[in-house]
Amino acid sequence: MRSFQVARRRALLQSFVAPGASQNSAMSQLWKRCFSATPIAASRLAGLDPSKLTVTKTSTPKELTAAKDLVFGKTFTDHMLSIEWTAADGWHTPQIVPYQNLSLDPSACVLHYAFECFEGMKAYKDNKGQIRLFRPNKNMARLNKSSSRIALPTFDGEALTKLIGEFVKLDSRFIPDARGYSLYLRPTMIGTQKTLGVGPPGSALLFVIASPVGPYYPTGFKAISLEATDYAVRAWPGGVGDKKLGANYAPCVLPQLEAASRGFQQNLWLFGEEEYITEVGTMNLFVAMKNKETGQKELVTAPLDGTILEGVTRDSVLALARERLVPKGWAVAERKVRMTELAEAAQEGRLIEVFGAGTAAIVSPVRKISYKGELVDCGLKETEEAGQIALQMKNWIEGIQYGDEEHPWSYVL
Amino acid sequence: MRSFQVARRRALLQSFVAPGASQNSAMSQLWKRCFSATPIAASRLAGLDPSKLTVTKTSTPKELTAAKDLVFGKTFTDHMLSIEWTAADGWHTPQIVPYQNLSLDPSACVLHYAFECFEGMKAYKDNKGQIRLFRPNKNMARLNKSSSRIALPTFDGEALTKLIGEFVKLDSRFIPDARGYSLYLRPTMIGTQKTLGVGPPGSALLFVIASPVGPYYPTGFKAISLEATDYAVRAWPGGVGDKKLGANYAPCVLPQLEAASRGFQQNLWLFGEEEYITEVGTMNLFVAMKNKETGQKELVTAPLDGTILEGVTRDSVLALARERLVPKGWAVAERKVRMTELAEAAQEGRLIEVFGAGTAAIVSPVRKISYKGELVDCGLKETEEAGQIALQMKNWIEGIQYGDEEHPWSYVL
Repeated sequence: MRSFQVARRRALLQSFVAPGASQNSAMSQLWKRCFSATPIAASRLAGLDPSKLTVTKTSTPKELTAAKDLVFGKTFTDHMLSIEWTAADGWHTPQIVPYQNLSLDPSACVLHYAFECFEGMKAYKDNKGQIRLFRPNKNMARLNKSSSRIALPTFDGEALTKLIGEFVKLDSRFIPDARGYSLYLRPTMIGTQKTLGVGPPGSALLFVIASPVGPYYPTGFKAISLEATDYAVRAWPGGVGDKKLGANYAPCVLPQLEAASRGFQQNLWLFGEEEYITEVGTMNLFVAMKNKETGQKELVTAPLDGTILEGVTRDSVLALARERLVPKGWAVAERKVRMTELAEAAQEGRLIEVFGAGTAAIVSPVRKISYKGELVDCGLKETEEAGQIALQMKNWIEGIQYGDEEHPWSYVL
Repeated sequence: MRSFQVARRRALLQSFVAPGASQNSAMSQLWKRCFSATPIAASRLAGLDPSKLTVTKTSTPKELTAAKDLVFGKTFTDHMLSIEWTAADGWHTPQIVPYQNLSLDPSACVLHYAFECFEGMKAYKDNKGQIRLFRPNKNMARLNKSSSRIALPTFDGEALTKLIGEFVKLDSRFIPDARGYSLYLRPTMIGTQKTLGVGPPGSALLFVIASPVGPYYPTGFKAISLEATDYAVRAWPGGVGDKKLGANYAPCVLPQLEAASRGFQQNLWLFGEEEYITEVGTMNLFVAMKNKETGQKELVTAPLDGTILEGVTRDSVLALARERLVPKGWAVAERKVRMTELAEAAQEGRLIEVFGAGTAAIVSPVRKISYKGELVDCGLKETEEAGQIALQMKNWIEGIQYGDEEHPWSYVL
């Protein structure tokens, strides 16, 4: 079977050079390295088939947690979606079953070699009681990119979206009926092969669990402060930092705790001798500042050079900025920003605001960044908890998510 | 509990600059970055206590697999060692129980964020029927380094060695009684906390499983050929490539398959614009060559700069080379070697031999390396499957492992 797999997977491999911004540095060539796998275009194995879905309902429905007591990712709905895959047969019958423990052989490759990847997405109830997803196609595409990079199987994204829809509808009573609340969905794929040999998993499990969540800032925005991390590195060119792999998360906890021990809510990952700003905790980062030469307002975020997670919120902020801020005179750029450039802008009064962007909070305004013993002020007034752009983005995106604005990004179940 | 953990773990954090060889490159500063956590010196929580061990024997002992049919990591013994940990109580009662599936909540953090690390070690039967481990203290120290880097708990290494000893003695009938055979031991630690929040796990499981294995080269050495990988990068200064984390393994499979698709048994990881030789597949790499200026024979391997796994076999080869080859006129060095330096040595007839070093094979001789479309000949004669140094190292190390030579590295149970 091993040789069969090698042949099969050979077809899906492709390396390419990312079109990242060029840098006048000795590391320029290295920066551009980016290695991905392309999902299988076609396969003779069974694909994911929503029409075969079987549903086993729980006999012990859970009590709902009061909306005010919800903690992110702590309580789950009655059911889960579960689909096995084997190298010999492809995708098996999709099943919705009662939420339950997984039974894994202690040699399962997910437990030893981190054959695991996931997505984070949400289901929202609109004011007509309809359930909506937000750009699920982006999550499906990214999960396929993640899984293929670690030799796990790919799948038909539309089929999985349909299956997730059925699951969400079945457990829709768990979606709190209030603005800011949603059902967090966690599609996860793990390798289940029972052997300690390091190789492409011959079996896998794709499952989706769901956790009702409240607003990230229940009492309105609360700006966070960051500690710039230069002693540890989250991602690098040619690595896997742009994929949503489990492998990218556990190593981030210690630097996060380091920052927390000094009173900072998140850490900011700097990269390289140039100390480029990359990501904040588990969010992408946006900087709004005035151009040093022209004075033009710019909204800037790091480019997708292989070291940056391709955030769905990041992409949405960029698209909305290009559509709605550029006509107002803003420039929007995906380019590398040095920490010193940000600090200089702050010093010269050109820094307008800084915010993180991610599925959990949509946007997360930043007040200060600790950098080499100095505190860089990110432009908020003392009485302010969010800047205008962050606020605007949150309202635009939330408006689409909850269906106030009809928009192709909102997917009604 | 979160704040308690933060405070507790704060004490164990320490960053340092590795004393790696200095390089005249723009990346020199970056190279030197190395971030580790120091295991807890003392804790008020319960430690690992071998005297509390409970044993539940299986009621259905397995049939032994014929020695010739053994496949690495595919069949396991009757039992497993299992110890739970919680942030509130520390280490719970160590248990030997029948080999069995783990029951994990689908939100368990090991499945999403790769909170997992492991060791590979072996138990050998000597010609008196005694069971021996090889340098278990090295594995214990490394597992503690790995676990603390991802905010998993640390433990008393001597206590775990004792517990592993009890487990191995109970399942000793699985250790084939022949040279080259052994019982592969897989200590593994996983985070089991049931929440999707990314943070230090509040609960963990340390388990050890055991798989009888045959000799890596059952019919004598078989030299392998490598493909140099420059499009993907395994490890980075300031990353976690020097720890034995699951996170380091899944991303390596595709480059491995890429190499295999072109007929190479393993891939060789090059790093940076300088294309430094780092590791081969999941082994460390040794190069024996004559010095360009002096003609002196040198045995060289990459230094521990934070990008290299601190292999126990690597350390053993270095120590034996310093003790037994240096008196014969060899130089031994841990230094960076460029791929071009190796290719040049090959061209000039100065390359003596190249071999990988790891627990599975002890040494793995290399015949050729594919590099930028050329095949670099690594010095073996066509009729040879191993060079003198590889052969010598294998015999020395195996002699110690099986107790032919009395040596402090061999630990009799």
